[in-house]
Amino acid sequence: MKHLVNMQDLSREEIYHILHVAKQFKGKTTLPHVNGMVANLFFEPSTRTRVSFEVAEKKLGLEVVEVNAAASSVQKGESLYDTIRTLQAIGVNAVVIRHPEEEFYASLIDTIDIPIINGGDGKGEHPSQCLLDLFTIYEEFGHFEGLQIVIAGDILHSRVARSNALTLSRLGADVRFSGPPSWQDERLPFPYTTMDEAVEDCDVLMLLRVQRERHEKEESHTDYLEQYGLTAARETRMHPKSIILHPAPVNRGVEIEGKLVECDRSRIFTQMENGVYVRMTILNHLLNKEGLDNEFSIKKRSIAGR
Amino acid sequence: MKHLVNMQDLSREEIYHILHVAKQFKGKTTLPHVNGMVANLFFEPSTRTRVSFEVAEKKLGLEVVEVNAAASSVQKGESLYDTIRTLQAIGVNAVVIRHPEEEFYASLIDTIDIPIINGGDGKGEHPSQCLLDLFTIYEEFGHFEGLQIVIAGDILHSRVARSNALTLSRLGADVRFSGPPSWQDERLPFPYTTMDEAVEDCDVLMLLRVQRERHEKEESHTDYLEQYGLTAARETRMHPKSIILHPAPVNRGVEIEGKLVECDRSRIFTQMENGVYVRMTILNHLLNKEGLDNEFSIKKRSIAGR
Amino acid sequence: MKHLVNMQDLSREEIYHILHVAKQFKGKTTLPHVNGMVANLFFEPSTRTRVSFEVAEKKLGLEVVEVNAAASSVQKGESLYDTIRTLQAIGVNAVVIRHPEEEFYASLIDTIDIPIINGGDGKGEHPSQCLLDLFTIYEEFGHFEGLQIVIAGDILHSRVARSNALTLSRLGADVRFSGPPSWQDERLPFPYTTMDEAVEDCDVLMLLRVQRERHEKEESHTDYLEQYGLTAARETRMHPKSIILHPAPVNRGVEIEGKLVECDRSRIFTQMENGVYVRMTILNHLLNKEGLDNEFSIKKRSIAGR
Repeated sequence: MKHLVNMQDLSREEIYHILHVAKQFKGKTTLPHVNGMVANLFFEPSTRTRVSFEVAEKKLGLEVVEVNAAASSVQKGESLYDTIRTLQAIGVNAVVIRHPEEEFYASLIDTIDIPIINGGDGKGEHPSQCLLDLFTIYEEFGHFEGLQIVIAGDILHSRVARSNALTLSRLGADVRFSGPPSWQDERLPFPYTTMDEAVEDCDVLMLLRVQRERHEKEESHTDYLEQYGLTAARETRMHPKSIILHPAPVNRGVEIEGKLVECDRSRIFTQMENGVYVRMTILNHLLNKEGLDNEFSIKKRSIAGR
Repeated sequence: MKHLVNMQDLSREEIYHILHVAKQFKGKTTLPHVNGMVANLFFEPSTRTRVSFEVAEKKLGLEVVEVNAAASSVQKGESLYDTIRTLQAIGVNAVVIRHPEEEFYASLIDTIDIPIINGGDGKGEHPSQCLLDLFTIYEEFGHFEGLQIVIAGDILHSRVARSNALTLSRLGADVRFSGPPSWQDERLPFPYTTMDEAVEDCDVLMLLRVQRERHEKEESHTDYLEQYGLTAARETRMHPKSIILHPAPVNRGVEIEGKLVECDRSRIFTQMENGVYVRMTILNHLLNKEGLDNEFSIKKRSIAGR
Repeated sequence: MKHLVNMQDLSREEIYHILHVAKQFKGKTTLPHVNGMVANLFFEPSTRTRVSFEVAEKKLGLEVVEVNAAASSVQKGESLYDTIRTLQAIGVNAVVIRHPEEEFYASLIDTIDIPIINGGDGKGEHPSQCLLDLFTIYEEFGHFEGLQIVIAGDILHSRVARSNALTLSRLGADVRFSGPPSWQDERLPFPYTTMDEAVEDCDVLMLLRVQRERHEKEESHTDYLEQYGLTAARETRMHPKSIILHPAPVNRGVEIEGKLVECDRSRIFTQMENGVYVRMTILNHLLNKEGLDNEFSIKKRSIAGR
C-alpha cells in the first residue's frame, strides 16, 4: 500500500490491519509521533472530512499545509501533476486530495512518489469514509460475516454507497439497498428492500444524505421521511442491538427524524470520532516507516487471532 | 463559567479575576501550556479578532483548527448545533464563534459540552473585546469607580457600546454617550454629551468605528470628524492623564484625526496587545483544569487585596 | 538588512552570504530553531510562494498565521500600515506580503519595526524568487562571472525578469533577453537574441511564464512555442552543462515542450526545493538574533574563501 485511492485495491488483510491499528489508537493515551508535513488539497468544499484529516494529522504531530485550491495556481491552468510535484519538491511528504473529477488519481499513482490519499473523487469513492464505517461496525459486532446491512437513500449518486456495499459484501456481510426507484443503481448486484422491511431485520441501517438541491425538485422533505426515511415509529421496530449510521451532514427531518440523531442506537457522532482514528492509522501506515515493524507485528497477531 | 457568551453572565468577581490573570500573563515570560485543540468558526469576516484568538491559542500551545465557515458544511444546511457536535466528536476541546445572528448561542449553551466563546454575535455582544477594553482601562487607572467614560459614535448599531456601557457602569464608572442624534439608542439609560464637552472632563474617550457603508449616505467624512470625531484641536483640551480607546479598524480622518492614532494618550495598539492576554486568560480559564487551583488562589488574593 | 523588499538594497556581500547559508541549510539534517510568529499576507492568489514560505517557516519552528487578505479588515478600508501595526501589536514578529501595488512597502520600511519580506509587489520585484534563482545557478556553477544567461518570454510584464537581469549582471554574468517584440522592455540595458541563437551558447536558459490572459489575444500557443519557446528540437542543441530554469507554474506546450519540464538539464523542481532553503535563510537572518554571530562567521569564511 503506497497510496490510498480506492477500496478495491485494499486486500482483506490490509483492511483488517487498518481496523485493528485504529482500534489500538482509540484505546491509547499515547500515540505515535510521525515526523513530516502533509498538504490537504480540497478542490470542493468540505468541513467534516478536511477537519477530520487535519485533526488526525495534528494528533500525529505532523505539520499541516492547507492549500485553498480555489485560490491556488490551479486557477492559472497548472496541472494536478505539477501541483503535487511542486508540493513534493518543497518538502511535503503526503497529500490528501478531494477533487470533483472521478479517478483524478489514475495518472498520478505511478508518477508521484509521495503517498496520495483520496479524500473523495467526484461520484467515485471516499475510502477513508468507507474505512471509518467499517471500523464503527467492526467495533460494534466484532465481525462482518452474516451481518444484515441496509444502505438507504440516494444510491445512484452516492460515493459512499457503492464502495461500502462492495467492500462489506466482500467481507461477508449481506447487503441490501433501499430508496426511491429513481435513485436505484441497476449496475450494482444488490437487492432492494423497503424501509419498513429493513428496520425489522437489519443489524446496520446505513442512511445516506439526501442532496437537497437534487431532492427538492421531486417531492417534499416530509414525504421523503415518511416513505424512505427513518421515522421514530420505524425506529421502535428495530431489534435491540441494531445500529444506525449516517455519513453526515444530516438533514434532520429528511432522511432521519431529528430526535433520532443522538438516540441510543445512533452511531453517527461515533463515526466522526472514529474517522480521526482511522485517518491517523492511514497516515501512520503510509508515512511512519519506522513504525512498520511494530505495525506488522500487530497485524500478524490480530489476523492470527481471528 | 463554562462558556463565555456575554458580559451580563459574568459576575463582578469573575471579571476582576480575568483582569488579574491577564495582568499576570502580560508580565510573564513563561506562560502556562494548555493541551488541546480549539476551532475558530468565523461566519463573518474578521482579521483582528480571529488572528488575536489564533495567536492567543498558539501562545498557550493549543492546536488550532480554522474552519472557513463560508466554505463549510453549513452551506449544505447543517445546523450550528450539528457542526459543533461534529467538532466535539473529532476531538476539538473548545470553539470560538463569530456569527451574524444575535444570541446564536442561546440554544447551544445547555446542549454542547465543550466551551463556546462568543467572538461576536450580530449586533449583540463581543465579550472578549469588552474584557480587553476593561483590562486596558484597569491597567491604566487601577480601578473603575468614579471614572468618567464617554463612548462616542454609532451607539445604535455597535455591539461594543452596549456591553461596555452596561459593564463599566456596573463596575462603578460614570458612562455617557456621544454621537449623531440618528445613532442614539433610547433603550439604554445613559446621558448624551457633545464631543466638545466630552474631551474636557473624561478619563477615557472610547471612540467607535463608523461603518462606512452606513455613514456615507448621510454626510461627508470631514463633517463627521468636525462635528462628532476627535480632531487634533479637541485632543489638546483633554486632561493630562486621560486616554483614547478605539476597537479598530480605525477610519483615519473620520472618527479620529489620523495623526492621533499613535499619540501619547492613545491606547489603540495597546488594546490589541492586551486582547491576546485577555483571550489567553479566557482560554486558559475554560480549558486548563489543572491550572484552576492556581487561578483561584490568584483570584482570592487579588479580590482580597482590593 | 532589516527588511527584504528588493534586490538593489542587498549588497554583493549580503547576497553571497544568503547563498552560502542556504547551501548549508540544504546539506543539514538539523536546522536552527527560531522562536516567533510570522504572518503571511497575500493580497493576490499564490500557491507556490505562499506554501514555500509556510513550509520554510514551519521547518524553522516558527508559528505561522495565515491572513486571508481577501476576507480581512483591509476590505473595511484599513490601511496596510494599520494592518501590519496590528499584527505587530498582537505579537507577530515578521510579515511576508504579496501585494498588487508596486513598492507597497515604500512608506512602511521606516515606520514598521518588524521585518517585512516582499513576496511580490505588482510588476515590481520578487526578491525571494530572484535569490532562489541565484542559488540554483550558484549551486550548479559555483560562480556568476562570465556566465551566459538568457531570460526569455514576457520581459515587459515580468517582475522576475527585471530584478534577475540587473542582479545577475551586477554579479558578473552576461545577460541577454529573448521574446516577442511587443514584450520587450526598452528601459533595460540588455541586448535581445533569438531562441535559436540562445540555445547554442547560453549556460542558463531562464524561461518566463506566459500570462495566458495576455497571450491568447495575440497568437496561438503552438505558434508561441515554435517561435519563442523551448522545443525538444532546440533543447538538443544546448551544450551539455547548460541548465533550464522557470519560475513556474509552467504552461506546458507554451513556453516549454511538456516533456522537457523534467528533462536532465531542467532545474525547475530543484528551484522549488531551493526556494524553501532560501526562504529559511532569509527568515533566520531577519529573526534569529542569537544566530547572528554564527551566521557572520559563516559569512566571513565563505567570502574569504572566494
